[in-house]
Amino acid sequence: MRMESTLYKTWLQYNEIPGSELRREYADLLGRVVVERETSRHCTAAVNELTEGFKSMLRTNAVFMDEAPASGSYLRIGVKVVEAAGTNREGRGWEKGEDAFSLKLIKAGEGKRLELIGRSPSGVLYGVFHLLRGMALGLRPEELEREECPVNRLRMINQWDNADGSIERGYAGNSIFYEGGKIVADTSRIRDYARMLSSVGINAISVNNVNVHEIETRFITEEGLPEVARVAEVFRNYGIALFLSINFAAPLAIGGIGTADPLDPNVQQWWAETANRIYRHIPDFGGFVVKADSEHRPGPFAYGRDHADGANMLAEALEPHGGLVIWRCFVYNCMQDWRDRSTDRARAAYDHFGPLDGKFRDNVLLQIKNGPMDFQVREPVSPLFGAMSRTNQVLEFQVTQEYTGQQRHLCYLVPQWKQVLDFDTHAVSAGVQVKNIVEGSLFGMKISGVAAVSNIGNEECWTGHPLAQANLYGYGRLIWNPDLSAEAIADEWTRLTFGNDKDVVEKVTQMLMASWPIYESYTSPLGVGWMVVPHYHYGPDVDGYEYSRWGTYHFADRDGIGVDRTAATGTGYVTQYYIPNRETYESLKKCPDELLLFFHHVPYSHRLHSGSTVIQHIYDTHFGGAEAAEGLSLIWSALAGKIDAERYEAVESRLAEQRDHAKHWRDVINTYFHRKSGVPDERGREIY
Amino acid sequence: MRMESTLYKTWLQYNEIPGSELRREYADLLGRVVVERETSRHCTAAVNELTEGFKSMLRTNAVFMDEAPASGSYLRIGVKVVEAAGTNREGRGWEKGEDAFSLKLIKAGEGKRLELIGRSPSGVLYGVFHLLRGMALGLRPEELEREECPVNRLRMINQWDNADGSIERGYAGNSIFYEGGKIVADTSRIRDYARMLSSVGINAISVNNVNVHEIETRFITEEGLPEVARVAEVFRNYGIALFLSINFAAPLAIGGIGTADPLDPNVQQWWAETANRIYRHIPDFGGFVVKADSEHRPGPFAYGRDHADGANMLAEALEPHGGLVIWRCFVYNCMQDWRDRSTDRARAAYDHFGPLDGKFRDNVLLQIKNGPMDFQVREPVSPLFGAMSRTNQVLEFQVTQEYTGQQRHLCYLVPQWKQVLDFDTHAVSAGVQVKNIVEGSLFGMKISGVAAVSNIGNEECWTGHPLAQANLYGYGRLIWNPDLSAEAIADEWTRLTFGNDKDVVEKVTQMLMASWPIYESYTSPLGVGWMVVPHYHYGPDVDGYEYSRWGTYHFADRDGIGVDRTAATGTGYVTQYYIPNRETYESLKKCPDELLLFFHHVPYSHRLHSGSTVIQHIYDTHFGGAEAAEGLSLIWSALAGKIDAERYEAVESRLAEQRDHAKHWRDVINTYFHRKSGVPDERGREIY
Repeated sequence: MRMESTLYKTWLQYNEIPGSELRREYADLLGRVVVERETSRHCTAAVNELTEGFKSMLRTNAVFMDEAPASGSYLRIGVKVVEAAGTNREGRGWEKGEDAFSLKLIKAGEGKRLELIGRSPSGVLYGVFHLLRGMALGLRPEELEREECPVNRLRMINQWDNADGSIERGYAGNSIFYEGGKIVADTSRIRDYARMLSSVGINAISVNNVNVHEIETRFITEEGLPEVARVAEVFRNYGIALFLSINFAAPLAIGGIGTADPLDPNVQQWWAETANRIYRHIPDFGGFVVKADSEHRPGPFAYGRDHADGANMLAEALEPHGGLVIWRCFVYNCMQDWRDRSTDRARAAYDHFGPLDGKFRDNVLLQIKNGPMDFQVREPVSPLFGAMSRTNQVLEFQVTQEYTGQQRHLCYLVPQWKQVLDFDTHAVSAGVQVKNIVEGSLFGMKISGVAAVSNIGNEECWTGHPLAQANLYGYGRLIWNPDLSAEAIADEWTRLTFGNDKDVVEKVTQMLMASWPIYESYTSPLGVGWMVVPHYHYGPDVDGYEYSRWGTYHFADRDGIGVDRTAATGTGYVTQYYIPNRETYESLKKCPDELLLFFHHVPYSHRLHSGSTVIQHIYDTHFGGAEAAEGLSLIWSALAGKIDAERYEAVESRLAEQRDHAKHWRDVINTYFHRKSGVPDERGREIY
Repeated sequence: MRMESTLYKTWLQYNEIPGSELRREYADLLGRVVVERETSRHCTAAVNELTEGFKSMLRTNAVFMDEAPASGSYLRIGVKVVEAAGTNREGRGWEKGEDAFSLKLIKAGEGKRLELIGRSPSGVLYGVFHLLRGMALGLRPEELEREECPVNRLRMINQWDNADGSIERGYAGNSIFYEGGKIVADTSRIRDYARMLSSVGINAISVNNVNVHEIETRFITEEGLPEVARVAEVFRNYGIALFLSINFAAPLAIGGIGTADPLDPNVQQWWAETANRIYRHIPDFGGFVVKADSEHRPGPFAYGRDHADGANMLAEALEPHGGLVIWRCFVYNCMQDWRDRSTDRARAAYDHFGPLDGKFRDNVLLQIKNGPMDFQVREPVSPLFGAMSRTNQVLEFQVTQEYTGQQRHLCYLVPQWKQVLDFDTHAVSAGVQVKNIVEGSLFGMKISGVAAVSNIGNEECWTGHPLAQANLYGYGRLIWNPDLSAEAIADEWTRLTFGNDKDVVEKVTQMLMASWPIYESYTSPLGVGWMVVPHYHYGPDVDGYEYSRWGTYHFADRDGIGVDRTAATGTGYVTQYYIPNRETYESLKKCPDELLLFFHHVPYSHRLHSGSTVIQHIYDTHFGGAEAAEGLSLIWSALAGKIDAERYEAVESRLAEQRDHAKHWRDVINTYFHRKSGVPDERGREIY
């Protein structure tokens, strides 16, 4: 692993700006930096980043000064703190506006003053990254002027890293946090990760898997905390609050108390003491992430309590310190009988949590996956968004590509996330999009935002597939401002990563934007999902989950396919949506093609809005998808010579694997449905 | 793990014989034992076993004497050694007759002399176990008279144990041989295993997995051998020769030679030196077991050499010491393309090895799995038996129930093995059964026999399912004498294990004898095999291997199912059999029902010899099979109170699991075929 490699440097390449008037202009403007002493103390990371960035891009060493020079141009940095009520005084708060910054170019005598004012040290940091990004993008100083305030208050990353160094659903090597049951001694790579996250506006991170095993359960003990505190310090410098995933049964497992019942006073006291202990070591600790009563994890159900009881008990312990409880809504019956068609996993989150609206304490946030199932290539949006007006909510995305090619296939997910954020829930009224709900002000949430499972590991390029870096970058940028377009983010990432060559920017952006539809086209069709190898979730296995306990079925028989989730004849899942979404999904005529099989069981001869039958659609998209996957590698090969060999080859080999694997997908899916339906392909292509 | 538990003691319970005339008769006859001093020295294990057995069954301490008493009854033990040419003088030979013993009851004055004469110390040991077995079975002394000589010379067990303590395809806990990368310090459990094996006539064991990993590769080094020698000593005392599985690439991996090419003189010399080294530590070392060029294991193909080159090179190194090379024929293309219907994995062993007949050295044995695929619940017999008249052969069975319920389902395999051994190959002439070939004299093999993968681990009952002990017992007994019936072996095992209560013997024997057909009935139908969860091989997944690289397909579509292996229209696999087998399998009319789908692709409406259609057969056997599985647990429950609680409950819980899991199998298979074929069940039973 070489930190100087282009693979490692991701979108923070800070390439030298070619000799030009623009470079001279920047060198003149940024050669001197005025930072008030008080500000400087809280902005070490920002100052370091500036120093590094200028040196690398301008080949000059910036001169830092306490006071403005008498004449000439300079950069001025300052903090205009917002002191909000209820903010945890020791650490960061979660008030709107706290992370804002402004950047202005002001004429001053014969020179110019670029003035960067943050509303907090974090704001300064974001402003610095904005400045450096603009320079790398080739913008002129006046184009950088901006008043920026992130739309979402909580902008979080969840690591699913285990203390043994493995990563659940990790596809880029082992953990950068842990090795052999311990937190790594050398945190320099964690620091680089913090830089990456901060550069795109992330302000919170949970550093261990939501499935909390034995060692991680002990992170909150007197022995574990000094180690966790080392990591918290690294992130603190970059404005990122550290959270831990906790084991709900910890009082039982390590507390020496015979129960984890949230209403038991001993349990409550144990958590209160635990919170005190944590904040002694980490004064700005973010809080807990909790996966409870899900997939065999312990939770309040064992004691006849509900999720509000469980979450509130933890929240009460954290409240005096300003900590948050992020409680995951991924709760469903994972021991379902596939023979029972009345149970519908898609209903589970809403059925479990909807009735609890209003019962959670102010510092509890419910974390809700974007769809009702589990990060499939295509799902409807979770109906929980808009259904709980008196509960803080966090939208959960998955940057790691568990079901979308595991960073061996290219799948730029920002367009998918955009669709989720832009979905019109019709809660309250038409036009209430998911992003309006998650942002918090609509329902007056105390704190809300977005979280996502990370896609990084200890491979040199961080993300397995070098182009998968775009997903991490895009996630941060999108939740900072959900109105950014997926194309704009792709363009930005490509320029920062590979430079401003027009051909490179066009082609890579084109690849990214095409990749999600391509991946969808050769995998499971029309929103039905799954059809992957059980457990691994890579590669096709149409019936892999069909007779399992996981509640993930397609019900394909020789006549048709799909899950009837209508109110009239199915599981009634559609009733969890507001009108008119409910009616759209209920109606075979109105239901959008891409979700048809999620909501309806139809014969193979059913004609889609597209004019094609379901079976012919399957054949066409799979032949077309495999061809398009091959096309991706052809586009890339046209860039040979324009991209350094390391990255060129790394991407090339992944695209070759995708090309071959897409054919495998094509043939398995087509053969499966051809054998089952007996319907020949209209165009007579080869099916086995 | 308690060594005194009935679970642990398996069929060597040595229960006290109830007070009776028979007991008095035995006490009188066996109270004094005459063993010549010379014999005694070589027969420690036999003497110990006698002492223990008598004490436990007769509650008397036998008196051992050097010379016959002047009067009264006694047991006389002696060895009449066969010195055969070519026998490895230091260790055991593999000559026919070497393991024989005779037991005679001779009137002498007013007393009787029971005379046990072994043709070797091993023969004595087998005679002792025969005597103790007869006593436990309640036989009278005169019923024990026998001249016994094992039919097969090599009677082997293969451990698939890894140095890390895991067992490949082990379903009864971890290894009793290894822990944490090392051979266990306390070998007392290995000794008990040796006793068990010896009691049923096993005379060879390979103690590490055929997939040889890093640590096991080093077993043959100067550091590894003293440890292996400790284990060899344990087995030596019980007449069992120790073998090692070796890594064909060892010269490369640990020899510091840049190649493992069998024709390279350095490689040859390295193996010769290795053999010398091994025999310095273990003078009676059995030899090597080799899995080469199979499932990604290294082998001679890498150097453009064939299997004869590879095996002969090793054989040459072992030859001066009397060692054997057991070379596995499990060689096939495990990277097959499922779209390519011309390649047929069933053909592979014959196609690879048939042409090499006559090219192997005298101390090479080819180890051939019983069927052409991989230990399925039903397969035809491998056509290699009878196809190689100039090559030593070992038939390989699998006692561990990889594909037959993993010791969570009851599946007594002796009837299956009997079918294999009794199969008429028609090689040379009609009536040439597999057992005649394997036994060696038909083709004049230098050395031949049977091997099997063990089913034991470190669980208290050794085999996961207590009744699975019958498979290990039955394997040994059957290959000692393939003319024993499966029923007789089941009866014998039940009596030894649970006592002679008539009801217990009848019911347990009935359960054992019914179990294989029951397991077959609710799993994959009509010989087509597979349909299991990939890798794990437990539980149904009809399409699990259908689109894989493993060459294991059923080709089910909406119209029919099966693999066409005929000469006329299929892969031609049938041509590997002699006439008339070839014709029987080729003909849709003659092909036996139970193998129909192995050899033919037929419509679901095809009518079987049984009168049923294929689809109705699937439904009927699956409904019936699940019912029969439930029946097994009902039979068992009728034995409550007649069996000690420990064993009763251990078996009961396994049978309950089988009952439920059989229903899962039933429903998955029936639903799969109902959805695919659309044909309703004639009897209108519930299919999902």
